[in-house]
Amino acid sequence: MDIQFVCEVLGTAAFSVSGALTAVKHKMDIFGVVVLGIVTALGGGLLRDIILNISPPNLFANTLYLSIAAVSALVVFFILAKTRNLAVFITGKIFNWLLNVTDAIGLGMFTVIGVNIAVEAHQGYQPVFYIFLGMLTGVGGGVIRDILAGTIPKILNKHIYAVASLAGAVLYYYAQLFIESDGIIFIAAGAVIVIRILADYYCWNLPKVQ
Amino acid sequence: MDIQFVCEVLGTAAFSVSGALTAVKHKMDIFGVVVLGIVTALGGGLLRDIILNISPPNLFANTLYLSIAAVSALVVFFILAKTRNLAVFITGKIFNWLLNVTDAIGLGMFTVIGVNIAVEAHQGYQPVFYIFLGMLTGVGGGVIRDILAGTIPKILNKHIYAVASLAGAVLYYYAQLFIESDGIIFIAAGAVIVIRILADYYCWNLPKVQ
Amino acid sequence: MDIQFVCEVLGTAAFSVSGALTAVKHKMDIFGVVVLGIVTALGGGLLRDIILNISPPNLFANTLYLSIAAVSALVVFFILAKTRNLAVFITGKIFNWLLNVTDAIGLGMFTVIGVNIAVEAHQGYQPVFYIFLGMLTGVGGGVIRDILAGTIPKILNKHIYAVASLAGAVLYYYAQLFIESDGIIFIAAGAVIVIRILADYYCWNLPKVQ
Repeated sequence: MDIQFVCEVLGTAAFSVSGALTAVKHKMDIFGVVVLGIVTALGGGLLRDIILNISPPNLFANTLYLSIAAVSALVVFFILAKTRNLAVFITGKIFNWLLNVTDAIGLGMFTVIGVNIAVEAHQGYQPVFYIFLGMLTGVGGGVIRDILAGTIPKILNKHIYAVASLAGAVLYYYAQLFIESDGIIFIAAGAVIVIRILADYYCWNLPKVQ
Repeated sequence: MDIQFVCEVLGTAAFSVSGALTAVKHKMDIFGVVVLGIVTALGGGLLRDIILNISPPNLFANTLYLSIAAVSALVVFFILAKTRNLAVFITGKIFNWLLNVTDAIGLGMFTVIGVNIAVEAHQGYQPVFYIFLGMLTGVGGGVIRDILAGTIPKILNKHIYAVASLAGAVLYYYAQLFIESDGIIFIAAGAVIVIRILADYYCWNLPKVQ
Repeated sequence: MDIQFVCEVLGTAAFSVSGALTAVKHKMDIFGVVVLGIVTALGGGLLRDIILNISPPNLFANTLYLSIAAVSALVVFFILAKTRNLAVFITGKIFNWLLNVTDAIGLGMFTVIGVNIAVEAHQGYQPVFYIFLGMLTGVGGGVIRDILAGTIPKILNKHIYAVASLAGAVLYYYAQLFIESDGIIFIAAGAVIVIRILADYYCWNLPKVQ
């Protein structure tokens, strides 16, 4: 089975869940939950394809991803709608933990896939072009999610968010120059996910102006 | 007279009025009113043309739409500037009603036109591509308007907003496969407008997580 | 030395500083400061290149601009981090004055450069196309900066912001039709900068609905 395909499916589902959780947090109705799930899951890739001049964007070439995003968001909606002690759940740590983990999985998978698709689409550009498109694919959907929900994007105020994506994009870009194996996709994506989850757990901070 | 042209003119004017009303509500000056009117009227079509790789975008191929949007916003500004009892008007129901109706007309017209332009530009893609571009054309301008005004986009928290656009896009896409008449443009756009106005009037709600 | 190049460097550095100052104001960490600096400096040009179908966008063809933006933002961060009386500085007038001046320089330089790049990329379109792309290049980065920081974009509520950019774009577009000299770049950009700084200083206002 194609590893890139597995990563795309996992990333799509994870980001859609993070979008749906955000929508529920902001009291949106079932359709808002589905829309925010889809936008979070497919927004980053859409931005990447627009910059790469890929028409139609990948998300329309294969409706599988759209379906996965829609179904994932609906599943979140119905599970939460059935949960009796939801107030406890939302204010509790489980909810935020789940939001962070799904967001981290989406970030890791999409960062690496973004580099991969850019490398396949155009050759011979500066490394920074591929690395930027990896980051854009990774963070784009979450940024759109946060802007639509009226909050400051995680990329700007979460510990080690853009740094994690950048690390994964650089790692994968240089690894794929020298190593043929598809396994590096998982290693680079996994690195992003582990960095993000540890950064949240231990509240790693970058320096700020006091 | 070309029905698509009539719909574009009506949609442009209606969305520009909704943008101008939003700008007045947020105490913007005359130029802010014109900018928000233009962005609301032309933003959705610009996003669609970027995804379709249409260069230059339609809005620059014919400056008529830009002029209509600018003049509509200016008319709103001067009418409201002349109104003595404005405070009553803005806090009153008339203002919100007018905002909802103009927004509904723009949404209906642009959803259908978006499907139409996508179908003319590219053939043989998945139906979801055309339906998505119809929705994007319909909701895009309003989403940009609401983000710029610092509020959560209507698409995410208004009763039956994205659903209305989706219904119109699906209806029109399948109707134009089988029916030659231009009249289906009006019928599908009208359906969106009627659904939206009724949904606002009767406060139709989709289920939420309690 | 190429005048357009000088303008691009100045505009990139100035906009990056304005983005970094905004990030510090919103208590972002060092990476957030760099990201907001880069996005502010390169966002407008990226939007312009997407509409012009330039792939890869200019910012990736030459990593000089990315480096200038990153270094400028880092310099702001370290200077402010060393300043003892920062609280006074941020609440004080110097901070806001610096933010307005750097923003004005970026706005002026990028408005004119945007017109120039559009004219070189495509010929024979309507003047409004080139003028719009000049304004988009000028205001785009700042609009993205303000949306990411969760504030209403300056273009919509600052005295004479969009008007200044529009004036510079119109002035430069028509001047370059008749005058060969590169000096008109500086004159048109300078006009925008002077208009903006004077408008802030004297609090020029456009009419509003009362």
